[in-house]
Amino acid sequence: MIKKVLKFGGTSVGTIERIQHVANIIKNEYDNGNQIIAIVSAMSGKTNELIKFSKNISANFDKRELDVLLSSGEQVTCALLAGALLELKLNAKSWLNWQIPILTEGDHSNARIINMNVSQINDFLKKGIAVVPGFQGISERGDITTIGRGGSDATAVAFAKLFDAETCEIYTDVDGVYSSDPNKIPVAKKIDKISYDEMLELSSLGAKVMQSSAVQTAMMYNIPLEVKSTFTNRKGTKIFDQHGIDYSKSVTGVAYSKDDAKITLIGVEDKPGVAANIFEPLEKVQINVDMVIQNISSIEKKTDITFTIKRDDLEKTKKILEENNKIKYQDITYNDKVAKVSIVGAGMVSTPGVTYKMFKGLADKKINILAISTSEIKLSVIIDENNTLDAVKKLHTIFDLD
Amino acid sequence: MIKKVLKFGGTSVGTIERIQHVANIIKNEYDNGNQIIAIVSAMSGKTNELIKFSKNISANFDKRELDVLLSSGEQVTCALLAGALLELKLNAKSWLNWQIPILTEGDHSNARIINMNVSQINDFLKKGIAVVPGFQGISERGDITTIGRGGSDATAVAFAKLFDAETCEIYTDVDGVYSSDPNKIPVAKKIDKISYDEMLELSSLGAKVMQSSAVQTAMMYNIPLEVKSTFTNRKGTKIFDQHGIDYSKSVTGVAYSKDDAKITLIGVEDKPGVAANIFEPLEKVQINVDMVIQNISSIEKKTDITFTIKRDDLEKTKKILEENNKIKYQDITYNDKVAKVSIVGAGMVSTPGVTYKMFKGLADKKINILAISTSEIKLSVIIDENNTLDAVKKLHTIFDLD
Repeated sequence: MIKKVLKFGGTSVGTIERIQHVANIIKNEYDNGNQIIAIVSAMSGKTNELIKFSKNISANFDKRELDVLLSSGEQVTCALLAGALLELKLNAKSWLNWQIPILTEGDHSNARIINMNVSQINDFLKKGIAVVPGFQGISERGDITTIGRGGSDATAVAFAKLFDAETCEIYTDVDGVYSSDPNKIPVAKKIDKISYDEMLELSSLGAKVMQSSAVQTAMMYNIPLEVKSTFTNRKGTKIFDQHGIDYSKSVTGVAYSKDDAKITLIGVEDKPGVAANIFEPLEKVQINVDMVIQNISSIEKKTDITFTIKRDDLEKTKKILEENNKIKYQDITYNDKVAKVSIVGAGMVSTPGVTYKMFKGLADKKINILAISTSEIKLSVIIDENNTLDAVKKLHTIFDLD
Repeated sequence: MIKKVLKFGGTSVGTIERIQHVANIIKNEYDNGNQIIAIVSAMSGKTNELIKFSKNISANFDKRELDVLLSSGEQVTCALLAGALLELKLNAKSWLNWQIPILTEGDHSNARIINMNVSQINDFLKKGIAVVPGFQGISERGDITTIGRGGSDATAVAFAKLFDAETCEIYTDVDGVYSSDPNKIPVAKKIDKISYDEMLELSSLGAKVMQSSAVQTAMMYNIPLEVKSTFTNRKGTKIFDQHGIDYSKSVTGVAYSKDDAKITLIGVEDKPGVAANIFEPLEKVQINVDMVIQNISSIEKKTDITFTIKRDDLEKTKKILEENNKIKYQDITYNDKVAKVSIVGAGMVSTPGVTYKMFKGLADKKINILAISTSEIKLSVIIDENNTLDAVKKLHTIFDLD
């Protein structure tokens, strides 16, 4: 008997028919002799509807009450799915955050699951299916907490860890992780197996199949994940430790995102502490700086510093930079029409020439590189937003992913 | 400082604007120095929507899971109202069924509140407004329970009782209890004060302003109630012990209902035990028999028995009577086109001639009386459904209620 955590996202439970379909998926797994904990999200659209309600009341709706509000969404899905399973003559029961309880720490709307009581549910699993809500828990004080958008993935991984489940399957509306966005790059292929590292780079770069922090947790505790479609019977993408993966290709996927903005400070004094003076006030207001590149400037004894941030943070960043009297510079340029294109692959580090191939490919397409950043398993460039698809397609081809 | 329980029904919190309006009503009460516990229903339409979801999954949706499902409605309103109060710079906090906890006993969807922990909320009331969900609680086993449709009234009265509140105000979409249905009888007048007894007779007879069992509980513990409109500033109807009421009129109101059916068994043997044989099998399947009238029959040594039931139960009742071989009768007639019209008034018992006046009024209108039933404070007749409004208008006039 294998213990499985199955997580169903918002679109997978978006209608009554889909909830009934999910019940059948679970029945199939249960009839195959598995013990099942089903984690559910709110029906698609529900959380946004509730957030809209709150915003109509206040731009700064109280965070404690927002968590009370939003957590109702998964409660509804739990009850409906448990009811649908019972209708299939299976023994099933919903368990709410406070009934388990799922203990969290940290701020409202941004809590982390730290523990839960497993004994009751473990007893129940011997005779039935447990249905539990994703995305939420309770604090030590007994208040309802939520763990951030997409938090149901984190719930699934936390359950898999604490219940010592053999596998954690993430059912969603795509049938796995692709070598690039299949909607934009028709030749993109589904990846059968991928390492946690690669998945992390891909998901933080815009392949929004799974929440990054959930993948991180799975990596930390070595919990095998599988991302698969609720709507087809096809195999999904298995995510596990990279030692289990045979790398025949140096590059696993090409990702891109269009929500970045690039800022360049030209002619900054080249002395210690300058970078800190630039980034400290940004960090204070939680503006996330992504890539940072420092070059020698054409101006004597000066340097140019380029960095990227989320496009949404641009106005705030501009204001902070302009009010920052600790830094001196000749000029400043902003560009919010940029895209970040990245190649990702755990095999990259051991394959020579990957960097050259990437730059050559972009040059062939006459695409100008505005900034470059590298890591062990990723190589990202900032380019003009208009060239995004051209770049992704070209890279997809030259790294044999088509 | 006065402690008040204010209950807001589904239409009162049916939109965000209305929730904000309710927050202003509460602010006003709080600024006047009162301690406030606000009880809220689900936003209007929400409970029906959730019930529809459950019915699409199963005609016999599991009752435990149904309670989990439905209780989410009030949770949403609690959070939104608490948020709206905080936005008005008031200290406010939502408390869910399990956070208080509200302890219930009895079956799912039909539980009764038996106790709750008052100390935490009492502490909080010294500095802020407590917002709590109507209609629900938890069982001793820690399962969510609900207390039946309209159960928010019962929650309000239970809170008033256990928190020793000075008054319990039921905010709704009408501005009080009327001498008859104001939509049908334009001359109907709002009643300023009414006794629990009269209110019970009126509400069980179709003036569906408040849930009957909640009025009964209020009567039992002598909790002053007030029914008032969320949408006007007018005074509502105060409901209290009849000793506090000055009866200048014998009749307080005229009520009617059109959901009855009349059954007459003609020529039943007139011997002991016959009535029991008729009604026992009906009681077993929880068919509620309302009026029962027994007359001497035109057939020798026989009697005629007439009784009324809910119209919805007619087919089931027919079947039970036809299969009942313990009773013998000459003939049976069914009539589901009848209405029950009642005059209600705690002053009736001490006013001679009320009965005569009623019958005379109906006779003037050439309305045939099919059955009569009386109590201390109520006189009901069954008439042809088509005559309902004529009868109600006439009675309203002759008892000086216009």
